[in-house]
Amino acid sequence: MDNSSSVACSAPRHAPGALLDALSRRFGERASTTQAVRDHHGRDESPFPIAAPDAVVFAHSTDEVADAVRLCAMHRTPIIAFGAGTSLEGHIQAIAGGVTIDLTGMNQVLAVRADDLDATAQAGVTRKQLNEQLRDTGLFFPIDPGADATLGGMAATRASGTNAVRYGTMRENTLALTAVLADGSVVRTGSRARKSAAGYDLTRLLVGSEGTLGIITEVTVRLHPQPEAISSAVCTFQTVRTAVETVIATIQSGIPVARCEFLNVMSVRAINAYAKLGLQEAPMLFFEFHGSPNAVKEQAQAVEALALDHGGSGFAWSSTPEERSRLWKARHDAYFATMALRPNARVLSTDACVPISQLAECIVQTEADIGRSTLPIVLMGHVGDGNFHLGINLDPDSPAELHEAEAINERLVERAIAMGGTCTGEHGIGMGKIAHLEREHPSGVPVMRAIKRALDPHDLLNPGKVLRMHA
Amino acid sequence: MDNSSSVACSAPRHAPGALLDALSRRFGERASTTQAVRDHHGRDESPFPIAAPDAVVFAHSTDEVADAVRLCAMHRTPIIAFGAGTSLEGHIQAIAGGVTIDLTGMNQVLAVRADDLDATAQAGVTRKQLNEQLRDTGLFFPIDPGADATLGGMAATRASGTNAVRYGTMRENTLALTAVLADGSVVRTGSRARKSAAGYDLTRLLVGSEGTLGIITEVTVRLHPQPEAISSAVCTFQTVRTAVETVIATIQSGIPVARCEFLNVMSVRAINAYAKLGLQEAPMLFFEFHGSPNAVKEQAQAVEALALDHGGSGFAWSSTPEERSRLWKARHDAYFATMALRPNARVLSTDACVPISQLAECIVQTEADIGRSTLPIVLMGHVGDGNFHLGINLDPDSPAELHEAEAINERLVERAIAMGGTCTGEHGIGMGKIAHLEREHPSGVPVMRAIKRALDPHDLLNPGKVLRMHA
Repeated sequence: MDNSSSVACSAPRHAPGALLDALSRRFGERASTTQAVRDHHGRDESPFPIAAPDAVVFAHSTDEVADAVRLCAMHRTPIIAFGAGTSLEGHIQAIAGGVTIDLTGMNQVLAVRADDLDATAQAGVTRKQLNEQLRDTGLFFPIDPGADATLGGMAATRASGTNAVRYGTMRENTLALTAVLADGSVVRTGSRARKSAAGYDLTRLLVGSEGTLGIITEVTVRLHPQPEAISSAVCTFQTVRTAVETVIATIQSGIPVARCEFLNVMSVRAINAYAKLGLQEAPMLFFEFHGSPNAVKEQAQAVEALALDHGGSGFAWSSTPEERSRLWKARHDAYFATMALRPNARVLSTDACVPISQLAECIVQTEADIGRSTLPIVLMGHVGDGNFHLGINLDPDSPAELHEAEAINERLVERAIAMGGTCTGEHGIGMGKIAHLEREHPSGVPVMRAIKRALDPHDLLNPGKVLRMHA
Repeated sequence: MDNSSSVACSAPRHAPGALLDALSRRFGERASTTQAVRDHHGRDESPFPIAAPDAVVFAHSTDEVADAVRLCAMHRTPIIAFGAGTSLEGHIQAIAGGVTIDLTGMNQVLAVRADDLDATAQAGVTRKQLNEQLRDTGLFFPIDPGADATLGGMAATRASGTNAVRYGTMRENTLALTAVLADGSVVRTGSRARKSAAGYDLTRLLVGSEGTLGIITEVTVRLHPQPEAISSAVCTFQTVRTAVETVIATIQSGIPVARCEFLNVMSVRAINAYAKLGLQEAPMLFFEFHGSPNAVKEQAQAVEALALDHGGSGFAWSSTPEERSRLWKARHDAYFATMALRPNARVLSTDACVPISQLAECIVQTEADIGRSTLPIVLMGHVGDGNFHLGINLDPDSPAELHEAEAINERLVERAIAMGGTCTGEHGIGMGKIAHLEREHPSGVPVMRAIKRALDPHDLLNPGKVLRMHA
């Protein structure tokens, strides 16, 4: 795959002067055309080159987003939503020109309803900010994609992360949304009822639509009781296969693990170097257990027994917060640890997810493949869900390295789809996986296109992402 | 509300002779125009009068469904999918004429993948049939709407039931679908990966679309490990409010109850009469706990303590299968117990679902309202989710009784929506709740209509359900 085939070409539709004037009149200094501001909004964490918008509007309310969208729609100019900028597939790159709406000023938690275990927040609130505000309620918001992403961005990409094996993803944890559609109208989807059979599931349609069907401005999410006790465990294995088979046995036994992460040797080495740790450099599993003190103990013991059955060693579990934080901080630093393997590098992060019975085979084949590469590559993942990532360290200015990384990803996606899996467990399609989506869902993509055309006939919302509309 | 406002009028488009001939050529005796067969397919469990289709096709495969849809589409004739016929809002009534496709012949479980905790089945497989086939795997399929509905019908109505508080609904438990669209094309959505961020969530769009966007022909569902231990508990309360407050406290404590059902005095009385039981006639909670023997014991003790705090009495828990079966059979017979309160009656079943903090108030207000009615009415529900049902016993030939029942439902829906809830937790919209859906989702219904128009421009799939397309 080269970029020309993977990125949907959409002819640039730059914001005309009249639109820039209108935005300036409506938003004053909060409509910026400064180069630095535009550049900052033209790149995410992917290796894709900067594609800056023509202007950036800093919105403070749903009404302001609606006004900005209406003005852009009048001028048939693309509109891109921007949160923390931590997407991994070029989601926020303004590849067709247009106006970016920065939602980080919409940073109010509007309501925490502890009795109902839910909260409503503006789209620019980050997950850490929400959890800060929940601290005294006995509740927490579990979705943890690593980065301190905004709730709007997390909903838009159907994010998940390390806790998903127990608590689900944004798909399961989003109760209701407010979004601005392509014509500037505002839709409120879902309700605070924990379940509903009221019509088409517009909430789930917007979750994962990556700003192409609407701009999410408010999110109502489910909260969960803080577990009475938490414990972590770490265990090393002789082979990748035995580590992964331990995970499969754990899931099949119905042990409600809260987190279950795999790291290969190279990733343990990268983390040791980056975080100055002395973890044993072997295939490794991190576990976390949530529940009553007894339940947590019972879960850890059951997993230890399974690990021993599979030749695991050094099983160590701890319920002290300090030790736990140290381990999880290391796990979350993996992205930066990968980046730090070479100076001035970027990381291409793959995202295959397969049925768990296929996971060991998929990882073993992938390790063989990356063993033939000259690039430094780590492998780690949320293996309780069958989801794992390669972090491919590359020089973004080297076409050869980009090509090599993309070829590895290409083969991995092929492998995952052949095994009944998906090209993306949690990162989304963006501009990087459009061809992969077409391969994975040959009969679904035409349906997605029909929905996109119905809701955004002029292809104004984040054009060139998710779907190739001009093919 | 009267029927004229709640039911979307769609001019009849009866199957022309040429279509009936074509169906007969293609399907032989499996295309029936016999009056008894048509009448059988013209009514569900709601009190709506029979609206028989012009013909019924008994399909055996996705290809056959596609052929039938293509033939109907050529003749611009409506198509209605039919499974067990246990819907509660007139979902399968052929109110605009047309051809019903009976899917009960598609009754093969295609694959059980115990390692992956999933199974793929044809749409006509019922939940009990699937669980029979899972018996030796150590796994089970938890969604239990009471009736032995088909998996296709359960997906189409986003069904849930008593286990949803722990295991989720069809929304959370459907991994992938095969469906035939309005033009006869076949779409395969989702994958067997446990999570995916690959494009728009077509699986979730079809789940709950009630046959109006596509006819579901195959369903891949999540399975769950059979719990090591199961125990039940029952407890009575002095008031509705204290019973419901016990539930709220249970959910807020994070106790992972598997089932949590409330019955009011009238419903206990109906069940006692129908099932010859001697339950104490007081507001009552049924609980079920799943887990390890220790976890189950711990959960039951924690709930008992909460029940005592709220004045509960007679807390009795049991882990013998016989006692458990007896209780749950009684709970599941509630529908028939309600029907049996008067001879020749039908039951109008309401389905409000509210945020759990509002549940006690919602039930108390509703009990006051039904106390003023002359009709026999029971109240029970899946209170762990905030969902409860009235079973309104009525004479379907009495306009006055129908009107009274609808007025009670109308006020209940109003109350639920005002409390941040939904008009339907699990029964769906069908032809009975179209006006309620419009009230609940004033900004969402136009979006739903746009999607319907994009995927079914001639309004062929189950017209007159979910949305008013000809208003």
